[in-house]
This record gives sequence, structure tokens and C-alpha cells, in this order.
Amino acid sequence: MFQNILQNVNKKVPLVHCITNYVTVNDVANILLACGASPIMADEEEEVEDITSICTSLYINMGTLNERTIQSMIKAGKKANELFHPVIFDPVGAGASKLRTKVATDLLHHISFRVIRGNISEIKNIYNDSGTTQGVDADVNDEVTEDNIGEKVSLAKKLSQRTGAIIAITGAIDVVADSKSAYVIRNGNPIMSRITGTGCMLTGMIAAYIGGNPNQALLATTAAVCSMGIAGEIAYQKIQEEGKGFGTLRSYMIDAISQMTQENLNGGARIESM
Amino acid sequence: MFQNILQNVNKKVPLVHCITNYVTVNDVANILLACGASPIMADEEEEVEDITSICTSLYINMGTLNERTIQSMIKAGKKANELFHPVIFDPVGAGASKLRTKVATDLLHHISFRVIRGNISEIKNIYNDSGTTQGVDADVNDEVTEDNIGEKVSLAKKLSQRTGAIIAITGAIDVVADSKSAYVIRNGNPIMSRITGTGCMLTGMIAAYIGGNPNQALLATTAAVCSMGIAGEIAYQKIQEEGKGFGTLRSYMIDAISQMTQENLNGGARIESM
Amino acid sequence: MFQNILQNVNKKVPLVHCITNYVTVNDVANILLACGASPIMADEEEEVEDITSICTSLYINMGTLNERTIQSMIKAGKKANELFHPVIFDPVGAGASKLRTKVATDLLHHISFRVIRGNISEIKNIYNDSGTTQGVDADVNDEVTEDNIGEKVSLAKKLSQRTGAIIAITGAIDVVADSKSAYVIRNGNPIMSRITGTGCMLTGMIAAYIGGNPNQALLATTAAVCSMGIAGEIAYQKIQEEGKGFGTLRSYMIDAISQMTQENLNGGARIESM
Repeated sequence: MFQNILQNVNKKVPLVHCITNYVTVNDVANILLACGASPIMADEEEEVEDITSICTSLYINMGTLNERTIQSMIKAGKKANELFHPVIFDPVGAGASKLRTKVATDLLHHISFRVIRGNISEIKNIYNDSGTTQGVDADVNDEVTEDNIGEKVSLAKKLSQRTGAIIAITGAIDVVADSKSAYVIRNGNPIMSRITGTGCMLTGMIAAYIGGNPNQALLATTAAVCSMGIAGEIAYQKIQEEGKGFGTLRSYMIDAISQMTQENLNGGARIESM
Repeated sequence: MFQNILQNVNKKVPLVHCITNYVTVNDVANILLACGASPIMADEEEEVEDITSICTSLYINMGTLNERTIQSMIKAGKKANELFHPVIFDPVGAGASKLRTKVATDLLHHISFRVIRGNISEIKNIYNDSGTTQGVDADVNDEVTEDNIGEKVSLAKKLSQRTGAIIAITGAIDVVADSKSAYVIRNGNPIMSRITGTGCMLTGMIAAYIGGNPNQALLATTAAVCSMGIAGEIAYQKIQEEGKGFGTLRSYMIDAISQMTQENLNGGARIESM
Repeated sequence: MFQNILQNVNKKVPLVHCITNYVTVNDVANILLACGASPIMADEEEEVEDITSICTSLYINMGTLNERTIQSMIKAGKKANELFHPVIFDPVGAGASKLRTKVATDLLHHISFRVIRGNISEIKNIYNDSGTTQGVDADVNDEVTEDNIGEKVSLAKKLSQRTGAIIAITGAIDVVADSKSAYVIRNGNPIMSRITGTGCMLTGMIAAYIGGNPNQALLATTAAVCSMGIAGEIAYQKIQEEGKGFGTLRSYMIDAISQMTQENLNGGARIESM
């Protein structure tokens, strides 16, 4: 299904400008390198336009925002839009504070995003500014389940229509949709939520995959979601076999991404079109 | 001895608001997840009150403070006090600069802490603003040894009486005390000081353990200190067996925390009441 | 060749003040501990003079600079110069934005550096403010190759003469030079560029090695470059044997540095005097 998505990343080596949080920034840099891209982190207002100009795509993550970096996000986003670079958004903790909800709204006002990826609580918050968010994790009452997939797919499509962005809702079951088509993905393992950064890394990978496949954004986003899920499955199996814990899990997830082949991806993807 | 301390953490999944340094923040997030809690990092003044309000406990660590985050620490601490959330303090490098000594004093003035954890140099600095501190490591002349335990226990009890906080002094031998009771802990391995973040992670775990056991703060603090020490012993033994070094040690410590059971903890704790 | 370089680091335990980026700061702290030194990170203007005064050396890395930290770099650098502490500079991304090029120039104006380490694009940018830089990676057209080593050695010597600093250009082939002598080093593995932080870690290690060997700065710098290259070779071999990927590679590189002996270093160094 995913044809040359990975090869295109490896061939192009997309340079991804990241304005992201200081919690998982190292993991984001390493996953970008592992998947064949190259990261550059820069969040000073005075230089973000220069930096984003030499890049392939821009990744904005509001995990640890502050007044200074909010301005940098807007400036970088506008410049990237001007240059038709894809801008990918991770609204970490939207709904957890008035500031985050406001910043998410502001960014959506100023910047045209190619993809927005979040957990269901964050995406719902963006959709209606009224979801409850349990910190940076999804509210369990909101989770995508087999029973409510249709409703979540519909939410994603409507939000895509309103924003023009591809919407990726990730959790136990993942939904990736534009205004017309949607994919439901059942890869991954619950243990992935027991290490920090899986969401941030995934959004970074989406920026890389789209950087390498600018004309197949929906497919590239779906491929990134599947890759991360498969990496989680492989890493989980390895730590089970070796009796390891969550510290090793993190290394093994990056290992799995660095070793992912087009065959692994196509063979392992559990994906349904809706 | 520790009964249901770990189960209570796993049952409650305490949400810990961390205002911490950017050096070890990823390790802190991962150890919190590994021990059954959930982290949220937020240090912007405009949002810290919102964030701390949805949390179980607040962890303040002054490892890489700056003018902006100092204000956020005070604001978050006051709010957490208002809400009777436990506030846990790691005075990294108190005594290493005039600024850090001053900030530690200011924070103690504005915020009522449930626990203060530091190495002996940091705790002495807080006690009398006159200890010498060799960077962020303890001065070897100050270390808790078998010969001076009584004196250090007495220091901890007096500081607890003055501040109202449980005092945890960690090093080769650890002391945990409130104004009346003290525990001396002999878990751990000297190699733990050869990776960054063991102190920061431990203080984060204290915030998690107390979040899950709010009415047994002294016991919860002691349990966290023992858990980290046991994790260090397990990780050290594994790298010795496998011929690994300090990079792997860090992963194995988080592994050990993620695999810690009530039985491991009770069986492995080397603890003495004083 | 390197006699007691490593022992001297282990004996002195140099305290290295780091003003560095938030992407790889944890790796820098861990590699400093792994090589026998001790790190302290502090970037607040109000405290950097105090902190640098208690340290052995100062490491300035402009990987994620901002207006606040630029001032701290200058202040810390001037103080370290006053105290005759070695100051080591990593001009990450010099040439990638006007700001970085300007800051590199400003820092060189205000601070006397003992060593400047960068990739060839960064060093060329410093040399003539006119190189092109592909993000934070070297431009492939600039890379040091067997065919142009003489030219690059000459560049390094001239820049050393102008700045008074030892110049380390690292890549597939490394060059370390002062105004008179140069070493060419052929250790390492291309895979090292597929994890973030190898450059930042190396520059940190140079600060540690010189801290332990203040009167043999050229040799200490060369030893650090060889150590990192050998660690990369060892780590690469291990992940190949075990079928691991880039996540594990990072841990194994720190492992290898923590296990490096004077014998490994002398035996493994592939070094040529030019």
C-alpha cells in the first residue's frame, strides 16, 4: 500500500525545523534521524524565518510553550506557509490550561497546517474548545473504541474540512482523515503510553514523511502512524523476550524505526479504509 | 513495611506537575511513567496555576532556573499550597551560586513544602546558608558516613521542624526524617552518581509516591528512596553481568523501576529506624 | 601517544560549566560523567559568573541559542577568560541563520577560546562568513576527504593563528590543529551522524580532557576526538552483532566512553601527524 514512502524519505533526507518541547526534544531529533530525515531545532524569534527557509517542513509542538516561543511558532509558521512548506502541529495538552487552548486557537488562526496530530482529548478540544483534558494524556471517556469509531472518523473529517489539515487522532485505535477519506489503524501496544514522547516523535515523523512525499500527504501521514505502531509492537515483543522494562523500550522503539523497511511497513500495517 | 505504597500509586496514577530543569527532564518524565504516575511539564507563568490545579502534586526542581521560571515556581507553589497539594522541592546546586541560594530561601519563604530532597551539601546550605557546594555534587567532606549518621539525622530533624517538610538527604547512606522520626537507608550503588538525573528522578518519584499515598508521606518518601536504591543495585548487577557501561545503566534503572513490585521493595529495602 | 590523558581526567574530575542546547544536554551531561568529569548546566545571566568561577572549564554550545542565553554565554566566557579557565566553543549551525553567524562572530570577538570544534561547514563559516550550511549538518561539498586534507589542515592552522584557538574539524576524517601542528584522525563510523549529539558530546569531552590536562591542550583535544571515534566503532560493532538500531547505538556509545582505557585509546587511535 505504501509503495515508496520510506524510500522517498531516505532519498530526500528532509530537513525538519522543529519548535518543540524540551521534554522529548532529544527523542524527536533521534527518531527523525532514525527514519532518514534530519532535524534542526531553533526557537528564537530572530532566526526562525531563516531556519525554516532552508528546511523541507516545519514541526510545531506546544508541549512546553512560553511567551517567547509562542511568537516564534507564529512567525515560523507564517514563513513556512509563504514558502508552501508543510507545517505539522502537535497541540500537546490543548484543554489542560486556558493558555494552551488559546494558543492552539491562535496558531490555527495564523497558520495553515498540513497535519494536526493529537490524542482524542486534544483534537476534541480543538474541535469545540470544550473537551476535558487529563493533563497531557487523553481522557479515558473520550478514547476511540470499536464502538465509537464512526463518530470519531466523522469528527476528524469535519475538523479537516474546517481547518484544511489532515487530522490524526492517535490512541489504542488511530484515525487519520482528510475531509473525504479516512484510515483506521490498529497497530501499536498500550505500553507505548508508558514512555514519554511517543506522540511527539510520531508527529515529527509525519513532518519527515510528508517532507519526503509532499504530494501524498494523507498516505504519508498514515504510513508514519503505522510505522510508529509497528515499532511499538516490535519493541514490546523484544523487551518481553529479554525481560526488560520501559527504559529499554524507548531505545528499542528508535531501533525499530531505524530498521524499518518498506516490507515491514506494508506487511505489518493493520489498516482499514473508512 | 511498605504495604500498599506501590499499589496505591498504580491505582491512583497521580498526575505530577513538574517545573524542572531541561537536563534531566526526559528522565524525570520517564521515571514517573515507569512508577505508575503521569507527568506534565509546564513552566510558563501564565499557565502554571491552571496546570497545577488539575494535578495531584507539584515537583519544583531548580536545576536550570532562570528569572522567568523562578516566578512560575513561586506562583505554582502558592497555588498548590492553596489546594493542599503536596509540593516537593529539589534544591539542585543550592550554595553553588548566590542566585541558587537566594532562590532556595525565597521558595522556602513563599511555599510550604511537603518534602525537600537534596544531597548533604544542598541540605546544609538550606540549613545554614553556609555550606560549600562543589557544583551540583555533594562536597565529599560533608557526606553522610557511618561515623556521622547521628549528626545528619539530627540536622534533618531540625530542618524538618523549622520548615515543616520531610527532609531527605541522599548519598552513599540516605536519611529521611520528619521532626520526630527518621529512617536511615543503605540501598543503592556508588555508580548511580555516574549518570545524571538519579537525584532529580528520585525527587519526582517522591512526588508520585506521596500523590498516591497522601496520608503516609514519611513512609512514601522512604519507599521512593528505597525503590531508587534497589533499582540502582539491580541495574548495576545487570551491566556487570553483561559487560555494559553507564549508557545502558540509565536504561536499566528505568527498567527496574518499571518492574518494581511491592515484594521487591519490601524484600530489598535496607532500612533502619532512628 | 596519549600517556596519562585519561588518568588525569579521572584524577582531577574536572567540573565543566556547560551553556548548551536543550536537545542534547542530557547526553552531554552523561558523557561528561562517563569520561570521569562532572557537569554543571547553568545559563541564567545572574549566576553564570558564580558558576563558572567554581568550575575547571567552560563549554559554550550555540545549538539552541536565544537572546537571554547569548548574554549569559558572553558573560560566562569573559569571566572564564579572566580566571584563565579554558573555554571551548561549539558553533552549532553557524551559517544556518544570520543570527547564528552573528553570534559566532560576537562570541569570537568577546571571548578567547581554547578550542573551537565544528563540522567543516561551521568552521568554514567562521573562517569566512560565507560557507553554506545545510542546517546543522555539514554540506557534503565541503566534507574533508583524502583528496583535500591538505587544504583543510591549512584552513584549520590559519583559523587557529587568527583566533588563538585549537581548531577541531570533525567528519568522516577529523582534523585537529593549532597554528603550527596538526593531527588527522581516521576513527569513527558514518553511523555516528545518525544519532543526535555526537558533536555536542565530543565538544563537552574536549572541555573535560583539557580540564584534566591544561598544559597539553592539543594532545587532550586530539585524544577526545580519538576517544569518541573509537567509541563509535565499538558501539557500531556491538549493534551489528546484536541486530540493534540507532536507539541502542546511543547507549552503547556512552557505555564505550565509560569503559575507555588508556590502552584502548592508544591502541585504537588512527592518527597521523601533518
